[in-house]
Amino acid sequence: MTAPETARRVAVWTEGGPRVVDADQPVVTAFDQGLGRGDGVFESVLVTGGRTPHLDAHLARLHRSAQITAITDPGEDAVRALVGAVVAGWPAEVEGVCRVFLTRGLGDGTPPTLLALLSAVPAETVRQRTEGIAVVTLSLGVPADFRATAPWLLGGAKTLSYAVNMAAQRHAHALGADDVVLTSLEGRLLEGPTSTVVWAARGRLHTPPVDTGILAGTTQARLFARAEDDGWPTSVTPGTVDDLVAADAVWLLSGVRGAAPVTRLDGADRGDAGLSRRVQELLAR
Amino acid sequence: MTAPETARRVAVWTEGGPRVVDADQPVVTAFDQGLGRGDGVFESVLVTGGRTPHLDAHLARLHRSAQITAITDPGEDAVRALVGAVVAGWPAEVEGVCRVFLTRGLGDGTPPTLLALLSAVPAETVRQRTEGIAVVTLSLGVPADFRATAPWLLGGAKTLSYAVNMAAQRHAHALGADDVVLTSLEGRLLEGPTSTVVWAARGRLHTPPVDTGILAGTTQARLFARAEDDGWPTSVTPGTVDDLVAADAVWLLSGVRGAAPVTRLDGADRGDAGLSRRVQELLAR
Repeated sequence: MTAPETARRVAVWTEGGPRVVDADQPVVTAFDQGLGRGDGVFESVLVTGGRTPHLDAHLARLHRSAQITAITDPGEDAVRALVGAVVAGWPAEVEGVCRVFLTRGLGDGTPPTLLALLSAVPAETVRQRTEGIAVVTLSLGVPADFRATAPWLLGGAKTLSYAVNMAAQRHAHALGADDVVLTSLEGRLLEGPTSTVVWAARGRLHTPPVDTGILAGTTQARLFARAEDDGWPTSVTPGTVDDLVAADAVWLLSGVRGAAPVTRLDGADRGDAGLSRRVQELLAR
Repeated sequence: MTAPETARRVAVWTEGGPRVVDADQPVVTAFDQGLGRGDGVFESVLVTGGRTPHLDAHLARLHRSAQITAITDPGEDAVRALVGAVVAGWPAEVEGVCRVFLTRGLGDGTPPTLLALLSAVPAETVRQRTEGIAVVTLSLGVPADFRATAPWLLGGAKTLSYAVNMAAQRHAHALGADDVVLTSLEGRLLEGPTSTVVWAARGRLHTPPVDTGILAGTTQARLFARAEDDGWPTSVTPGTVDDLVAADAVWLLSGVRGAAPVTRLDGADRGDAGLSRRVQELLAR
């Protein structure tokens, strides 16, 4: 069952704790650095069965993002309370996406801005999870080893500055594709604009190393842990687009969409050797 | 005279035209893509003598940024009316910075979000304009010719996704400097995080080419036009940090701070050969 995609909820963090407000009510002031500078961090958390089963991994990454960007972390208890407030009463049969935003606020020493948003997972996202996605590769133009020594580029932080990520997806749509695999200057695999790249080859699951500046994928980490438990070995592998072409299967993983099989890569159809079912079963455990 | 830096104003664009609101009143909803994705564009316009003498150049660049990011442009008349509303009654003796934000809004086909903010120019900005700035060079990690052929990287668009720009300035502050000159992977000069690089050498003013993906500087364009009229030739020059070291003078130009002389570059003191006065006189005409 899918709820109307317009069913939206918002909760803001206040001195007194979480406060649920109307989703159409403005909640951020014009001088907030999260708005004017994209100077904040976020997480997108799956809501399923009325719960957020993978929240812990997102809280840990939000904490790391706040550290990298030197934004005051309001603490795990605050974020948990806020997410709990916005999710409370959400129908168990409707998949949702809960976004948590933490911004630098006014940037003048007053507290950061913390809010949570909840809406139904779009039907198109569910379709992509089920039917797969056409992907194009686009270069980010940065060498794979560059961001590890250039902390001002904020590698590893999930910031609100996603204009390029969104532009890459629009570019893909204009090419008739659904999504993107970003590559380094020399053609090394990085990540999707909102996902982690995983491929199956030679009996193993592979994903690119995070020292390239990509985000540590929460869904990829869960899949790899469960795959190892299940006897499916995993590797962190510096790969190229050629490795994806030669792979048995390729997925883009994210918390909300799950494992979306890549059915077309740079215009060429490709299969998944029947492996997507096993991946999705491991993630659903 | 400097007003309290907390004197802030905000105007939002509505169906009925501009509406001035309290600066502490929230004006943007949680689902606005300008907040959650840094998916919007902006301009920072100097307010002096109670007026915005350089507004035209900012309007033109805002329009280009909207085109590059495929955000619906509400049109010059709307932006002029909004800026007029927020500036009206601002004291002539207080320099202000008027920021105009245009976001994708909800991204669902409803109108974009347009708002304007006004606050006094911070004393520190005035100090940097007068006394000069210590600058460090930091690499963006992208080749100088890369962004011209990678439109998804949004070269030339002044987007709200400024987290890296802000992080670069924080990195400079941690090194005891005021600001940054960003360079390409191969060490070519690009721009400051919020400014344009200009240097004087061999009797000419120089600035890097915009096909590197940098913003077209509104203040740099005004300076160059007036310098040419004044018999000071100008060039668009692909330069390196060595060119800045060898230059007679180096400035970071922006609409609000004006021409800030670089008095220290990567830890080495440097002069301006007495040229800053002429640059500032040309800009003040």
